[in-house]
Amino acid sequence: MSDYVYNLLNKHHSVRRFKDQPLPDEDVKKLVEAGQAASTSSYLQTYSVIGIDDIEVKDSLKEVSGQPYVVKNGYLFVFVIDFYRHSLMDKEKREELQESFGSTENLLVGSIDVALVAQNMAATAEDMGYGIVYLGSLRNDVARVKEILDLPDYTFPLFGMAVGRPADDEQGTAKPRLPFEAVFHKNKYIHDADQHQALIRDYDQVVSSYYDQRTNGERTETWSNQVINFMSTKQRLDMLDELNKSGFIHK
Amino acid sequence: MSDYVYNLLNKHHSVRRFKDQPLPDEDVKKLVEAGQAASTSSYLQTYSVIGIDDIEVKDSLKEVSGQPYVVKNGYLFVFVIDFYRHSLMDKEKREELQESFGSTENLLVGSIDVALVAQNMAATAEDMGYGIVYLGSLRNDVARVKEILDLPDYTFPLFGMAVGRPADDEQGTAKPRLPFEAVFHKNKYIHDADQHQALIRDYDQVVSSYYDQRTNGERTETWSNQVINFMSTKQRLDMLDELNKSGFIHK
Repeated sequence: MSDYVYNLLNKHHSVRRFKDQPLPDEDVKKLVEAGQAASTSSYLQTYSVIGIDDIEVKDSLKEVSGQPYVVKNGYLFVFVIDFYRHSLMDKEKREELQESFGSTENLLVGSIDVALVAQNMAATAEDMGYGIVYLGSLRNDVARVKEILDLPDYTFPLFGMAVGRPADDEQGTAKPRLPFEAVFHKNKYIHDADQHQALIRDYDQVVSSYYDQRTNGERTETWSNQVINFMSTKQRLDMLDELNKSGFIHK
Repeated sequence: MSDYVYNLLNKHHSVRRFKDQPLPDEDVKKLVEAGQAASTSSYLQTYSVIGIDDIEVKDSLKEVSGQPYVVKNGYLFVFVIDFYRHSLMDKEKREELQESFGSTENLLVGSIDVALVAQNMAATAEDMGYGIVYLGSLRNDVARVKEILDLPDYTFPLFGMAVGRPADDEQGTAKPRLPFEAVFHKNKYIHDADQHQALIRDYDQVVSSYYDQRTNGERTETWSNQVINFMSTKQRLDMLDELNKSGFIHK
């Protein structure tokens, strides 16, 4: 009975500015091992991790994401849904297996497997004194990422993660989350729109105050405004097409 | 710089037999809080957690999953991709927002968000002395799960998790994972089929020995055989349809 992990995880905040200090190979290996220890759907292990320290590869990926910390970090990981190795297993059944990978169910299996691996790595990295930031931005151009990393069929680059020692003047703090009551439902889903809206209104004030304090009054955006603005711009509308091309969501 | 989390996560194994000892409310809340502390894509927080202690709800969900530990546990969680609350935010932009939820990109966002929350909860639970098991089996009948939990549009039940004190005679052990070399690629994906197949052949022996020892020779299945058998049976072919009905993957 320990609260160690509870306390550690509650201190999480994304780090976007790192010291110029590469991760030693043994730390990279430890992180991946911790990732692999996560639960995996039906023991399928439908993931690969690409570890990147080559500056040219980093530079190319930065062109996709637009974020400086894709280059400036201690190490870069790209997390890949991976049914390629499964496709090599049995020549006779290859076509049958490939049909199976193409189901939407197996896209979900792969996405969940990959995310569990990554979150184990995130928690382990933070415990080892590193900071991390997830990079969904690699989905800005999946075709290009596949080309850069030379990804085969039945794989899909889901997201990246930059890891490293936080810069000395890095001062991130944990951003306030939706209140427990807004995300937790007991036995049945709470539909009541008024209740949801009241909780969101209160939360909007919390988020607005958080930004206000952090920016000395320069930014006071509410959560709702942020979400509405973000969602009003259609994001990555090629995703279905890219997944299809990689062999996924065919039925 | 600590190895606490690394060591904890490496001890993970799924627990399927629990003591008849319900989780106290404060532990449920702590787990959800630890979950919420995870990174969330673009601050969208596209998840809900349904906490279930009602025996009738558990019984109904067990009919979907077929697994006794859906009923017999300390507590049951169902993890839901959730854009419902986002849909309530802005009456004028509602249609536009809903169109946005329907993109495949946002299905990925929701799946990843949900999995990060769940894995934080898994790690925290194990640190608190609980055992956990994921329940992908709730996807056996998504329509029925939505009915049981009264889930609204723009939500999707992705998986469940049973949590509780392991039974005294529960003797699970960590199942061997694919070797590091098989899942880790440096800077570029390793295509070489011979190399993959050699690694899998070695790993097959490791898995086969593991089962042999655990079952006193009654089971000696390799990993490849397990995967091929599992994948040869088409799983949950209604998933695309169910996601569409819930408002997802429309483009």
